[in-house]
Amino acid sequence: MLSPLAHDVNATDAPLARAALRAHYKAVRSHTEALIASLSAEDLCIQAAPQTSPGKWHLAHTTWFFETVVLRALDPDYVVVDAHYGTLFNSYYHSLGPRHPRPQRGLLTRPDLPAVLRYRQAVDQAMGALMDTHPSANWQQLLWLVTLGLEHEAQHQELLQTDLLFALSHNPLAPCAYPALPTSPAPPCEPGWDDVPGGTYHIGHNGTGFAFDHEGPRHAVVLGNCAIARYPVTNAAFQEFIDDGAYCRPELWSSDGWDAIEQQHWTGPLHWRDSGWAFTLQGLQPLDPQAPVQHVSWHEAQAYARWAGARLPTEAEWEAWQQVHDIHHGHQGVGQAWEWTQSAYSPYPGYRPWAGALGEYNGKFMVGQMVLRGASHATPSWTWRPTYRNYFPPDARWQFSGIRLAQDR
Amino acid sequence: MLSPLAHDVNATDAPLARAALRAHYKAVRSHTEALIASLSAEDLCIQAAPQTSPGKWHLAHTTWFFETVVLRALDPDYVVVDAHYGTLFNSYYHSLGPRHPRPQRGLLTRPDLPAVLRYRQAVDQAMGALMDTHPSANWQQLLWLVTLGLEHEAQHQELLQTDLLFALSHNPLAPCAYPALPTSPAPPCEPGWDDVPGGTYHIGHNGTGFAFDHEGPRHAVVLGNCAIARYPVTNAAFQEFIDDGAYCRPELWSSDGWDAIEQQHWTGPLHWRDSGWAFTLQGLQPLDPQAPVQHVSWHEAQAYARWAGARLPTEAEWEAWQQVHDIHHGHQGVGQAWEWTQSAYSPYPGYRPWAGALGEYNGKFMVGQMVLRGASHATPSWTWRPTYRNYFPPDARWQFSGIRLAQDR
Amino acid sequence: MLSPLAHDVNATDAPLARAALRAHYKAVRSHTEALIASLSAEDLCIQAAPQTSPGKWHLAHTTWFFETVVLRALDPDYVVVDAHYGTLFNSYYHSLGPRHPRPQRGLLTRPDLPAVLRYRQAVDQAMGALMDTHPSANWQQLLWLVTLGLEHEAQHQELLQTDLLFALSHNPLAPCAYPALPTSPAPPCEPGWDDVPGGTYHIGHNGTGFAFDHEGPRHAVVLGNCAIARYPVTNAAFQEFIDDGAYCRPELWSSDGWDAIEQQHWTGPLHWRDSGWAFTLQGLQPLDPQAPVQHVSWHEAQAYARWAGARLPTEAEWEAWQQVHDIHHGHQGVGQAWEWTQSAYSPYPGYRPWAGALGEYNGKFMVGQMVLRGASHATPSWTWRPTYRNYFPPDARWQFSGIRLAQDR
Amino acid sequence: MLSPLAHDVNATDAPLARAALRAHYKAVRSHTEALIASLSAEDLCIQAAPQTSPGKWHLAHTTWFFETVVLRALDPDYVVVDAHYGTLFNSYYHSLGPRHPRPQRGLLTRPDLPAVLRYRQAVDQAMGALMDTHPSANWQQLLWLVTLGLEHEAQHQELLQTDLLFALSHNPLAPCAYPALPTSPAPPCEPGWDDVPGGTYHIGHNGTGFAFDHEGPRHAVVLGNCAIARYPVTNAAFQEFIDDGAYCRPELWSSDGWDAIEQQHWTGPLHWRDSGWAFTLQGLQPLDPQAPVQHVSWHEAQAYARWAGARLPTEAEWEAWQQVHDIHHGHQGVGQAWEWTQSAYSPYPGYRPWAGALGEYNGKFMVGQMVLRGASHATPSWTWRPTYRNYFPPDARWQFSGIRLAQDR
Repeated sequence: MLSPLAHDVNATDAPLARAALRAHYKAVRSHTEALIASLSAEDLCIQAAPQTSPGKWHLAHTTWFFETVVLRALDPDYVVVDAHYGTLFNSYYHSLGPRHPRPQRGLLTRPDLPAVLRYRQAVDQAMGALMDTHPSANWQQLLWLVTLGLEHEAQHQELLQTDLLFALSHNPLAPCAYPALPTSPAPPCEPGWDDVPGGTYHIGHNGTGFAFDHEGPRHAVVLGNCAIARYPVTNAAFQEFIDDGAYCRPELWSSDGWDAIEQQHWTGPLHWRDSGWAFTLQGLQPLDPQAPVQHVSWHEAQAYARWAGARLPTEAEWEAWQQVHDIHHGHQGVGQAWEWTQSAYSPYPGYRPWAGALGEYNGKFMVGQMVLRGASHATPSWTWRPTYRNYFPPDARWQFSGIRLAQDR
Repeated sequence: MLSPLAHDVNATDAPLARAALRAHYKAVRSHTEALIASLSAEDLCIQAAPQTSPGKWHLAHTTWFFETVVLRALDPDYVVVDAHYGTLFNSYYHSLGPRHPRPQRGLLTRPDLPAVLRYRQAVDQAMGALMDTHPSANWQQLLWLVTLGLEHEAQHQELLQTDLLFALSHNPLAPCAYPALPTSPAPPCEPGWDDVPGGTYHIGHNGTGFAFDHEGPRHAVVLGNCAIARYPVTNAAFQEFIDDGAYCRPELWSSDGWDAIEQQHWTGPLHWRDSGWAFTLQGLQPLDPQAPVQHVSWHEAQAYARWAGARLPTEAEWEAWQQVHDIHHGHQGVGQAWEWTQSAYSPYPGYRPWAGALGEYNGKFMVGQMVLRGASHATPSWTWRPTYRNYFPPDARWQFSGIRLAQDR
Repeated sequence: MLSPLAHDVNATDAPLARAALRAHYKAVRSHTEALIASLSAEDLCIQAAPQTSPGKWHLAHTTWFFETVVLRALDPDYVVVDAHYGTLFNSYYHSLGPRHPRPQRGLLTRPDLPAVLRYRQAVDQAMGALMDTHPSANWQQLLWLVTLGLEHEAQHQELLQTDLLFALSHNPLAPCAYPALPTSPAPPCEPGWDDVPGGTYHIGHNGTGFAFDHEGPRHAVVLGNCAIARYPVTNAAFQEFIDDGAYCRPELWSSDGWDAIEQQHWTGPLHWRDSGWAFTLQGLQPLDPQAPVQHVSWHEAQAYARWAGARLPTEAEWEAWQQVHDIHHGHQGVGQAWEWTQSAYSPYPGYRPWAGALGEYNGKFMVGQMVLRGASHATPSWTWRPTYRNYFPPDARWQFSGIRLAQDR
Repeated sequence: MLSPLAHDVNATDAPLARAALRAHYKAVRSHTEALIASLSAEDLCIQAAPQTSPGKWHLAHTTWFFETVVLRALDPDYVVVDAHYGTLFNSYYHSLGPRHPRPQRGLLTRPDLPAVLRYRQAVDQAMGALMDTHPSANWQQLLWLVTLGLEHEAQHQELLQTDLLFALSHNPLAPCAYPALPTSPAPPCEPGWDDVPGGTYHIGHNGTGFAFDHEGPRHAVVLGNCAIARYPVTNAAFQEFIDDGAYCRPELWSSDGWDAIEQQHWTGPLHWRDSGWAFTLQGLQPLDPQAPVQHVSWHEAQAYARWAGARLPTEAEWEAWQQVHDIHHGHQGVGQAWEWTQSAYSPYPGYRPWAGALGEYNGKFMVGQMVLRGASHATPSWTWRPTYRNYFPPDARWQFSGIRLAQDR
């Protein structure tokens, strides 16, 4: 499955393109529903922390996004399914009106789950009609907006899983969200480094195909010689770091990181339990020593790097590395867990937020967060782009976030 | 429906007594389930504040109480339904082992609602067998423990409703928990006072029939002349208090009460909305001016009394009043909303907590709370006793709590 | 030194009475200044918790009290020393205008200490003139108000010491506020109980001489047989309680008390340090095993009593005990540390707060606090009255507060 | 006055160099004492927020720095003035042992102010002897360490003033720390932009003379065309921003900035009072419309820039601007208030923290903070360097922090 805008052909209003868009739309939306098929209405209602959301809310919010950004924008005759939903399922768009308080999303037992699923059906039906009948002259706009809505939904497919995992982790019964699949142990992550020669690189999105606003403009950076680890840091390696007393050694940590240890009593990655087990969406599972560590904060990534005599890459180095070595999703461990970088989340030179409400999508978060690159096992693979920028606060641990080392050469 | 222990006849192990106990057990337990029949699993899962509990938790906790206090105590062969439930559904009994953290009760999506209902069925079945077959020689003990369990369940039937109302009140859709019944306006609460002549009274439970430990021992108190208002303070009267600027006049309030106003931004009773409406278990409803005010804290009750040139009764005065005037449940507005008294919750002279874990039922809460007397519309009427002592912290407002005035004569 | 109102003779406007009042005024005011003579301006400026106040603030507040309650009330021509002081040094009297925020008292470096001492001098001078020249016809009023101001100052003399001790306790240098006096060990507190026969007693102040409003009206109470411990609980006895694991045994504690242990990490009385030492106003000192324990909360007093198979006395029992056994200040350990009672702080039957602003003195604190009886080593002995009611929240530990046991007989 | 390391000549151990170092040491240390000459011991004792420190603490901490980093490091026979001071006055150096809790610095009435001044004298005497007698062979090391200590002291000279201003701002008397000097209104800040042509620049310190570790290594950056405002944003301009409703318009703010407005109730710069007045170290003063705005957070700087159709410069642009236009301290408003940049505080490529405890000086703060460039009126001018990097969290407002705009060209 590829994003519609990934192919130039799709940018034309050929019948084939309409059909491809509709198929893509259906596939993405169905995948969201597949993610909740094994879960109860209760599982999808709860919220364990203000920065997380209930599964049901993700189901509704992504639907509200299509309703608001596509249907209401393009179809003057469109009538919203329920006037209350505009407030209940608006995440953070001030310019789109009032928003239900974020910490209270877990109290919304009404609309109930069947009502939210009906909401999805109604919007899907309206979207189908729009994709069938929208005038050719405006096809580009529709294509772009639908693609945006699907990229947005893909992001929430991952958040739905991280939030669900976090919520269920508070249950002493250690419940399974999904049945365990037969898996083979991860292949060994071989040690070694990929050299990235110093020089001028061009990073950021070049404008062909879909990208979020903050992925561009493409611009020059000057890098020194560096090397990027061939594989991410594994659970076994991170266990060595713990065993070496790292969580008791302030010299390894940033000042804020040490404060976090003292205040939040961190002693290992989130979701790790005693004796080599971890809580997962498949319930309690033994940690695979060779698998990339995940559920670490930026602080833990930074401290690990210092302990290992290395550092985190900048996002420019990370992107240059993939250019030089032609790294793809899945190659060299990319795509198992997001990789924290040393870069604070900031606008690229010449950055302009999208116009209107969509300008709030990324533009207002460019302070206090750190960039992650790559993707995780919960990221839909069709959204993979080497220029993709993910970002979270430096103490966030409930994402599928891991570590790849860098060093100067 | 009467409490089994209310009749002497029940205290003997006649077949009739066994049948009466079983019938009472079934009626009380069924009433709990009737209270949740119109609600979804989501409605029963959420928790809006640490001092409240989800409906599902109430369903399970009352069941755990029978399992722990009756079945495990009296039947050495009893096997618990699920070993985890001992931790999950223990409310606050340290002597009965560890407890799931109270603020996280709303995160327990597992066991799900059907599992909790199966838990109720299994325990009901075992209780039925026990009531049928328990030896006559131990009948008194069984009778007492079952009665305790049912009184306990009655308390949670009320809490289930107050907690549910509080939880749903956070939903901007103002959902209905229960369909609105056709009601006629409350009859006017006539003004006037009942005189209670000064002298020595004996208050507290005399030991005949069931009572909680803290209702005794019966003991003498000396009272001065006083008068008790014939009817509770109404919504209309409380509105006058508001309209007179009471929430902006520190001289009416205790120091803690004024702090509560400033910190919690109180401007009227909890659940009151604009323009004479209130949120109820039947959704938004117009306030009945003649109905007793409810959802006020002790601080609001005290300030209202001061504003009205009166005071709150002590619990001894309240109980003496009902002796002198032969007040019953339903007479003179008793039983519509709990009535705050001026008395801090303290042990009566000679009080001894029940032995063992049951000593934690009331005995450890005798500091920092104020006594309420009477009952509310959500209190099962068969539990009515003139000696009943309810208690909550002085800033609690989510209960069905109102005001009756007193004054010196 | 006796309180002026303690003698009927003072109530007449004989020249002797004027002289006696002036002498008393001077003695009390000078004692306050003696309490700060060994302390620096810095020592007197800081505030370690919102419920405490800096020494300098106590110096000024007591002066403001005379200025506001006496000088401005009785002398229409009086001009205040500084118009700002009305706000800065008003403690909690809403009816006397705005108040500087209590938690920020420790930030008031201006007025500096010399300015506050000048403020005291100016007010003392005006008070002297008033006491000399006030018309005989109004003598009673003056006598009462001055006496009130001095009783008020006596209370702040004790608070100044408890607040200072608390503030200095945060300094790792363990500084001395006052030089250590040569002391001999406390005489052994003999075990044993004083019987108090059941019956009707009259407690509360009878109106002769000065008393605070809440000490009356005198009223009848019915008591059962009880016994009161002949001496307070000692440091050695409290150490046994600790050694018996009491701080790890929830069954001994009220629910709120156990929460306090878990949240505030109590393991012994406030100011106790390792190995039998305690921080005092004389710096670190060895604990005298025979001396009454102090710096315990109500929760610790209650738990100790339960552990010892006893209970705390009610305030009525405490006052009846002193009537029956003719207990005085200093006899049987009374006057070394305040003694927690089982009684919540509530109005006596028929209580009326003083009129006007003075009604805020006690009347607005009658919820959420527990009564202490007796006095401490920091209480000026001339204020001793058997009807005196002190009160603090149940988790307060920074006062000189101890334990005397009671039991049913 | 110039920093010793600013001249090559000082780097040799000529007698002249020793004399110059001693003179510089004396001048810097004396300046600190001049800053507190008009203040009382009380003024210097208090602490109004955890991130600030009392004046007395700054006096002692800077002295501890010389004692620890110079005297104890270079003189094996040196005996510390007081063994407790190592804990009391260690700011944040984990590798130098335990530290007194930062939020409790304002409770340290002992050592008192005279004792701290004696501490300064004792260390100054030992430093004088060391500078006189240290072997020539180790002169370079001494020179570098003394210079570091003086640069450190200069930073605290500024912090002492910002912290003092913040502390005194809580006093309703609006006290003066320093007498007001006769000033003339600021000259008008002329509008206009300095162009900075795109290209490759080298930024960061080149290693000649003193610099903090984080100012290097010097490295290449690629910049696009941009322009930098010729003068900082003035009070008058910021007032227009306020008058345009900016504090009520979420679209101007970052998400975190808007949260700060809602939670901290910002309505204008810190220390601004009604009607064009501001609280300053000279007490309440009218705002000079032409003077640069100060006491704004990064969030306010960013929102102002967006409102003005501009943006903040990156720190690379700021440094390139001063290279291209040969900007010096005092030219074009530089040196009146620190200037927020768009850059998060991060290590330069190839950055290595100093070895040992000094590695904690900057290296552990490189997350969650934003860079400010330039200097303020409270920054000792001899520390001016174009490569100087200051940093604070994005919501910090108690520093002398202002705004300079940039825009793409």
